[in-house]
Amino acid sequence: MTWLGLDIGGANLKAALGAGWARSSPFQLWRDPDRLVEALRQLIEGAPPFNGFAVTMTGELCDCFTSKDEGVRYILSAVDALAGSKEVCVYLVDGRFVSPQQASELSLLAAASNWRALAQFACRWAEGRNAVLIDMGSTTTDIIPIVNGQVAAKGLTDTQRLGNRELCYSGVGRTPVCAVVQSVLWGGVDYPVAAELFATTADAYVVLGDIPEQARASWTADGRPLTRANSMQRLARQFCADSSELKDEHLQQIALAVRVAQLRQIEQGITNVIARMGAEPDLLLLSGAGEFLVRGAVQNRLGSCPVLTLSDKIGPVASACAPAYAVAILADEVGAAR
Amino acid sequence: MTWLGLDIGGANLKAALGAGWARSSPFQLWRDPDRLVEALRQLIEGAPPFNGFAVTMTGELCDCFTSKDEGVRYILSAVDALAGSKEVCVYLVDGRFVSPQQASELSLLAAASNWRALAQFACRWAEGRNAVLIDMGSTTTDIIPIVNGQVAAKGLTDTQRLGNRELCYSGVGRTPVCAVVQSVLWGGVDYPVAAELFATTADAYVVLGDIPEQARASWTADGRPLTRANSMQRLARQFCADSSELKDEHLQQIALAVRVAQLRQIEQGITNVIARMGAEPDLLLLSGAGEFLVRGAVQNRLGSCPVLTLSDKIGPVASACAPAYAVAILADEVGAAR
Repeated sequence: MTWLGLDIGGANLKAALGAGWARSSPFQLWRDPDRLVEALRQLIEGAPPFNGFAVTMTGELCDCFTSKDEGVRYILSAVDALAGSKEVCVYLVDGRFVSPQQASELSLLAAASNWRALAQFACRWAEGRNAVLIDMGSTTTDIIPIVNGQVAAKGLTDTQRLGNRELCYSGVGRTPVCAVVQSVLWGGVDYPVAAELFATTADAYVVLGDIPEQARASWTADGRPLTRANSMQRLARQFCADSSELKDEHLQQIALAVRVAQLRQIEQGITNVIARMGAEPDLLLLSGAGEFLVRGAVQNRLGSCPVLTLSDKIGPVASACAPAYAVAILADEVGAAR
Repeated sequence: MTWLGLDIGGANLKAALGAGWARSSPFQLWRDPDRLVEALRQLIEGAPPFNGFAVTMTGELCDCFTSKDEGVRYILSAVDALAGSKEVCVYLVDGRFVSPQQASELSLLAAASNWRALAQFACRWAEGRNAVLIDMGSTTTDIIPIVNGQVAAKGLTDTQRLGNRELCYSGVGRTPVCAVVQSVLWGGVDYPVAAELFATTADAYVVLGDIPEQARASWTADGRPLTRANSMQRLARQFCADSSELKDEHLQQIALAVRVAQLRQIEQGITNVIARMGAEPDLLLLSGAGEFLVRGAVQNRLGSCPVLTLSDKIGPVASACAPAYAVAILADEVGAAR
């Protein structure tokens, strides 16, 4: 049995096969819930043959749904429409695979399960030791303790995980700058950030050269491409200015303030999670689009701990769709034993 | 000559006549710039006769425009289409009225001018004394020093005004909760707010009973009406939860955290502005939808200072469109002297 893993998020759709084929696509689920089935069809078009779908998700939190239960059911019905006669299994945050019917009934366990799939998958590299998995994506960062080679997360739901810092709801793409930085000092004046969704963290990282431009991105704050010029304008607008009104060095300082603030958030999260593990980790496992930033955070806090990156282990293509890849592999290994 | 004042914002359109007729309407300019002329036509439909338009704006900052200059020109061309053969005058942040042609050339002086119109208008109640005008709206708060009965603002542009705290980019309606509050403590756990635009400050104030429900509001974070039930769900979602997962008292604590944080912001802004005035104010002038909150802030900081509200002076209808009313009156008084 060959499973195609699906990771259905609110801002991105990801699909992967254990053999290595993988694809991701930005999709603003909260704007276009009606288009989900069509978007999933486009996503898996041209995939090598497979027998069934293994599903993990986070998109149920989108506010096009009146509740997470409604969101889980909606996403499962979209997968049902996609799957036709193919089998579907759904991964729960407690590590079980269940049928879509059972997952609908256990919707709060099917909600926000992708971190758990990735962590369970990543345990193989811990080889019985203690490790921390840090997966920083466009929107959120998961910091998952692994103790004696087993997932040792203290929280199951995202709310619990926010509370214990295993979930840091901050990422290197879509995170509003106004939620990360309160004010930026330049030219001797401390300027508060306008409380408005004018720019996101990706704008800072493009200006700093940490991530490449994306000429076709439309998920930015103003819907314009992720280019250096547009990012500078978006960052300037956070201070009610046009980029032409600010000096280049001041725009750099704004971007740097975002990086410093996110580094601190991640460092603080790692510190909290390790403090509860009761032992130093033997290994750090990094993944996601924010790996470049997490690397800085762990160097500051845990400079001597060995670091493994998921892209080194499974390659950059599968790594970019890591939870989808993980759930495909787990379904092979675990799901088949149902 | 009778002028109709227009205040063209990014989220609200306001129109008023000096004789007292006034109307405001939510309009998300950044989503629908093509509909601006039509929306303005609907806004002024049924207004008593008048001869010309007096214009003030803030909508040029919307990110549907690539720059503030483009925004000012776009808004002025919409007014031109609306006005037909009627005269148009535009208020600048330096207090002058100019023609649309001149305003286009001086676009950075025509940008974000509505605070200045309101402050200049409000000076009449200071009667030569020192005062502070605090106008808290749905999105921003202006804190304007008046010295010896004259506008004594130290900043002209919104960027300068952010820097010196005369502009606090935070309001009681549309402000993202994630930009106001970093975390909320309940049940013995400190929960960080998800960095996502799931709820706005209005949700907190509806839950607290500070502002009424609005059954037809669509400017909320998820586009659903501003009802207590929807607001509770939106606030819960800021912590990745459904409202049914949280206790009522915890939702109250979330809402209270928003109020406390905004109170502090406003208090800090008032403190900074007064510190630079060099003298205690003899009078506080309050206006805007956030008057209820500002009242609390000034009681904390300046309990013994006399308070005047704009709605007491010009009535609640005109007060709800205060900058439009102000620019209509000023055009009569000042504009006629051009």
